[in-house]
Order: sequence, then structure tokens, then C-alpha cells
Amino acid sequence: MENSRRWFLRALSASGAAVMAACGRRAPEEPPSLLGSPVKPYGERSPLEQTARRIADTSTPEAAASRTPLQDLNGMITPSSLHFERHHAGVPGLDPARHELMIHGLVDRPLIFTVDELKRLPSVSRIYFVECSGNSRTGWRPVPQPSAQAGHGLTSCSNWTGVPLSVLFKEVGVQPSGRWFIAEGADACRMMRSIPIEKAWDDALVAYGQNGEALRPEQGYPIRLMLPGWEGNASVKWLRRIKVVDAPVMARDETSKYTDLMPDGRARQFTFLMEAKSLITRPSAGQKLGAPGFHEISGLAWSGAGAITRVEVSTDGGATWADAQLQAPVLAKAHTRFTLPWRWDGRETVIAARCTDESGYVQPTREALVAERGLNSDYHCNAIQHWKIHMDGTVVDAAV
Amino acid sequence: MENSRRWFLRALSASGAAVMAACGRRAPEEPPSLLGSPVKPYGERSPLEQTARRIADTSTPEAAASRTPLQDLNGMITPSSLHFERHHAGVPGLDPARHELMIHGLVDRPLIFTVDELKRLPSVSRIYFVECSGNSRTGWRPVPQPSAQAGHGLTSCSNWTGVPLSVLFKEVGVQPSGRWFIAEGADACRMMRSIPIEKAWDDALVAYGQNGEALRPEQGYPIRLMLPGWEGNASVKWLRRIKVVDAPVMARDETSKYTDLMPDGRARQFTFLMEAKSLITRPSAGQKLGAPGFHEISGLAWSGAGAITRVEVSTDGGATWADAQLQAPVLAKAHTRFTLPWRWDGRETVIAARCTDESGYVQPTREALVAERGLNSDYHCNAIQHWKIHMDGTVVDAAV
Repeated sequence: MENSRRWFLRALSASGAAVMAACGRRAPEEPPSLLGSPVKPYGERSPLEQTARRIADTSTPEAAASRTPLQDLNGMITPSSLHFERHHAGVPGLDPARHELMIHGLVDRPLIFTVDELKRLPSVSRIYFVECSGNSRTGWRPVPQPSAQAGHGLTSCSNWTGVPLSVLFKEVGVQPSGRWFIAEGADACRMMRSIPIEKAWDDALVAYGQNGEALRPEQGYPIRLMLPGWEGNASVKWLRRIKVVDAPVMARDETSKYTDLMPDGRARQFTFLMEAKSLITRPSAGQKLGAPGFHEISGLAWSGAGAITRVEVSTDGGATWADAQLQAPVLAKAHTRFTLPWRWDGRETVIAARCTDESGYVQPTREALVAERGLNSDYHCNAIQHWKIHMDGTVVDAAV
Repeated sequence: MENSRRWFLRALSASGAAVMAACGRRAPEEPPSLLGSPVKPYGERSPLEQTARRIADTSTPEAAASRTPLQDLNGMITPSSLHFERHHAGVPGLDPARHELMIHGLVDRPLIFTVDELKRLPSVSRIYFVECSGNSRTGWRPVPQPSAQAGHGLTSCSNWTGVPLSVLFKEVGVQPSGRWFIAEGADACRMMRSIPIEKAWDDALVAYGQNGEALRPEQGYPIRLMLPGWEGNASVKWLRRIKVVDAPVMARDETSKYTDLMPDGRARQFTFLMEAKSLITRPSAGQKLGAPGFHEISGLAWSGAGAITRVEVSTDGGATWADAQLQAPVLAKAHTRFTLPWRWDGRETVIAARCTDESGYVQPTREALVAERGLNSDYHCNAIQHWKIHMDGTVVDAAV
């Protein structure tokens, strides 16, 4: 590591395009000695920073998605203002002073909780990713994408705080016949999903906090279900009702959508788990390398099955692979930032990352995924993504 | 734990003020079946959420501080918009396309780096707190504070990304005589601090990322020094120049300020390390408990010396202490969220937290701190904070 850290700057200097010797250049401009802006109650980003969520073309903007600009971000936390969105009927304007959560069905004591009551209860804070199961769907075909954001931007990672659903279920007294629960949102489409009750006893939360403050409106304000590591749609936003039942209800959004059609015509259902995926975010499609020489490769890896244990990166189209460094913290069901020092020699090449999680699962190639599941489904594509770097430094999606 | 989790809701129900049995109350209001707001490029919090940084009264708003509303936040990440501020000459409006960092002095190869060049280099991402050494200063007197924010709001915690300073120092070739470095900011006061060079070889960063996106302007955009676990002022913002020297230069801001005057008139200098501190943020001064019964106690603990290993909470004025639960992740030099289930019996009482870090250091009482350091200094007060809860549920600072 010491050695790899030493040579990059010489490489940079050798490229003639980067670091300047101070003696051969005037000192940095002296900034003006004028007082700057004063403190303020609630900050904003610099107006010079303009990265934004990418909004898909749609005839119904309320039933749309917006994607996180993964290629522009660093670290492992997604800024709440850039968390991806997927709404089936727009963002309802709920008032936490009036919103309530009802838990009923196969329970001994049906209860209604106000938001203030939920906040008084025992809380858990954890860092978890949320990923739409339709993320990376163009990988099935594959259709070259203009950016990491366009292809894979339906995943984000936040510090969530809420009440364990197990706490609420113990209090209402779930009956032995209660094997599933239905979660229903307060959006106009009444998003509804059937969830196995085991997830409630494991790590499901009724979340009210995101990255230190209240949930953002587009993330379910004032409360949402949070099912760590499971497909985003099941973590029902604007949560208003939980009904304990004995079997899944086959609601509209778990049959017409969020079910995987297999080659033999049967449905693969339910596919909650988001399996391990990794993605190089820099360099990635749409970016341009300035000059040959040192460039850090950086990206994200995550798995719904637990912690990422390894990320390998190839810079020669898959012929050889090197272990990337995992940036702390490395947490179960959270984005993990990985980095690898790299010296680009200026020739055309293809780069890619593949990850392994603590269950031993290795991120598959597209070929392996298609052989197993066919091409009927739009969901759960976690294939290795290849980026091609041209000699002029431009980076494109290597999908063919 | 199972037991403590079970009784709170019965306690809540028994209080008659909280959770309603669904059967004794109409179902929650049906939300309107109208499409909500569409997706958007860059999100904002709900207009119903109004918590804000608290701005101190000052005749020069550019040389002021604003405090994080700790009592209103959850989890361990501070939203960037609510990160505390301390500016000595306001926030300069720097352009990353023009800003540069010069490293010179006792080095073999003085170099100038553009911001783009720094972003090409090997990066590190970590979650660290930043705390002003003047935080909690009123604890020395002590002067009762109206809120956790007013007394202790000069600490915040973010996911920072940047280049290790060691990488830059290896490339410029620090000479054996180089034992310290001076960091200088591009604000109008040219904030300047002397730092022992060992910190560069340890974990210092030149940071450009905060919580996934670019540094916020008030946190040093486009680049700042980040000295994990050390007093915030030394992590010079708007960093423009690093000069390697053989001894500290005794700059204005490390002599007239940020030096601790001891009882015998001598200066305690340099006091970079922020020692272990914990604070109950809920319930805390200015809040009001709604009714006797179950209330979760929640707070933050942190230490510049490493990870927090234990937080104890007293709910009887210090007579007995119980171990709080530490919420994952528990990271060195980062805020750690702690929680403890508690049943308030409605009587007047005093609550407090004290923490231990991995060095074995235990957060002291005010009496112990004063016995050691006297009352001449405003800095580095990490004494245990007591909150008094009155019978009507109001919470006040128990400082006397």
C-alpha cells in the first residue's frame, strides 16, 4: 500500500497535466480580505454545486421515479435531498399532528398510535440502503446507459431511526395464526404490500428519522416501514395501517408489479431480498478522464443479505482482478464505499467491480443471471456492470 | 431487555394519555385520494419541520456561531444543513475551479494542488464528529442553559471524504526538521493554526466531501482540514496553505484564543484532544414530558480518543446508574447514539449520562474538572450534564 500510494503523484506529475511545482508557478491567488457571509439557521449547498436527481420521462409525473446521482457523490451516506424517489401516486402532504398508525387484524389488542406516541417508544438507529427492485433493469437487455445514475440510481443509503416493529407487535399481541402482515400507505394509490411476519421479529422498523432529522416528504414523512435489505417498494412509505393476516393478499402492486416472470411462464414470488451488487461510480459512463496517469477508482457495494466482505476490481476487461479497499464503516445492509488506486496508461480498456457478501454470495455476470432467470423480468438485476474507457478519456456503458 | 421492552407499552396505556385501543376509537382518518406532489431534482424537508440552528447574539454576525439543535435530532449523523457553525470572519464565497492548496516550507518539493487534482488522489471516507473546544463552556460557571442546543450545540457528526494529508506530505517530501505544520484558511481573518506533524501521519484529511456531497460552504467549501477527534478550530476551513515548520508559530488564534488559562496563571497549550463527553438529548432542558409512564431516554456520546465503550445513565440524581444501549455503528471519534428505556413515575428527579471511551477515560463531574483546571478557562468543559424534571413534566438545566 505504501508503494502504491507513493507512485501516483509521480505519475500525476509525469502526466504534465496535473500537480504543479510551486516554484514554477505563482503562489495561489490571495483571497479578498472582506468579511464573508454570516451564520444562518438552516444551511444550503453552494450554488456552484448543481448535481441533481434525474427524473425519468413520464406522462404522469406523480407516478414517476428520480435517480440518485451516484457518480457525483462520495462516502456512504446519501444526502437526503438526493435520495432516489419512486412514487406511484405522488407525495402526499401529511401532517404528523394528525397522522396515525393503526395495527389490527389477527391481534389480541388492536391499537392506534399517533406519531408522538411512536417517538416516545424504544428506538433503534441504523444505517441501511434502500434499493428499488427495478434498479439496474436495463441490465437485463442490456441497453447502454448514459450514466451510473441512469442505470443504477435507484439506490440510496441513510441513517434511519424508528421503533422496532417487533415492539409494536408484542404489544398488540399477534395471534399464532398471524403469519403475514399487510402494510398500507396513505398515498392516493394506497400502496399495499404483504410481508412475512418473520421480518417484523427480525429487523423491521417503523421509521420516523432519516439522517438525523425527520423523514423527508418523499421518503414517507412522517412515518414509513423500513425493511432492511429488502426491495424498496415493500418498505411502504406514509405508513397508515398494518393488518396482521394469515397469508399474503396478492395486492395489485405485488402481482401486476414486483413479481418476476420466469422463462417457463411461472411467477417467482416473493423476491424481497436485494442480492449483492457493486458498481464503480468513478470513472463511470458520462465522465471523462482528464489525462493518463493516476486516477482513483471508487464505487459502492451493498447486499441485503449482510455485510460486504470483498470487492474486486478489474481494469482489463475481466482478465485479472484486484482487491479494492473497503472504507469504514462496513455495515450489514448498507452501502460500502470502496476505492482502488489505478494508473491509466491511456489505452482503451474496460473496468468493472464484483462483490462478495458475508453469506459467501458472489455478484454474478449478466450471462449467469440470464441463464438462471431468463429475460422476462425487469426486476432484481444485480449483474456486474462494465464501463469502457476510450483513448480520449470518455467513459461509456460497455453493455453490448 | 425483553422484559423492559414489554412493560413500557402497558405503562403507556396505563397512563391513559397515550396509545388508544383501536376498538374504542374511530379508525384513522382516510387520506384524500388525490395525486400528491411529483418527483423533483433536489429535495427539501417538510415545511412543517422548523428546527434550526440557534444563532448567538453578537454585534458582528460574521464572527459568530450557530448551534446544532441536538434535542430535535435522531441517529448519529447530523444533517449538513444543521451542522454547527463557527466563523471568525464569515463564510468566504470560494470557487472550486479557482481555489488551490499550496504546500511548502520544510519540504523537498513544494507543490500546488487544484481541487480537481485533489479529487483524483487516493481518498478516505470516515464518520467523525467535529466539536468546538468552546462547546459546553457555560458548564464551567455553571450558568443554566435553556436547551441542549444552547449549552452543547457546538458539536456535529458527518461522513467526511478527502485525501489523507500523509499522501500529500509524502509527495512534497517533508524534511526531518519539519515537526509542525501551519494550516491557513482563505477566510478574511486567515484563520491559522499550528499542528504537530504526527497528526498528518496519523489520520488528518484534506476533506472535500460531507455526507455524500461537496462540503457545505459554512464547513469549508471547497476544501478543509479534518483533524479527527481534535478541537474543531484546528480543522481549518477554506484551507489554502500548509507550511511545514520546525515549531508552532503561536498564531493569534492559538494564543489569544484556544489556550486554557490554568489556576496558577500558566497556559495549558496545546489542548487539541476533545475528551469523552455524553449528553442526554431527550428529555433535555426546554422539553416537556407529556405524562408519567414510559419515555425513552436518548442521547449522544463521543470521544476524540477513540470509540465509546460505555454510557451509564442515572435517573435518580446520580445515586444509581444503568448501562444504556449503544446504537450501531459505534465508531472511533464519532457521535454514538445511546438509548435507555425509562418509566417516569411523575415525581421530580434529576437525570444524567456519563460515558467511558476505549482508552478507559471516564467523563468527569464538574467538581473534578474544576479541581484539576480551575475556573479561568472557557475551553474543554466535558463535565457531566444534569437535567432536572419537574412534576409538571418541564425539564430544566440542573446546573446550580
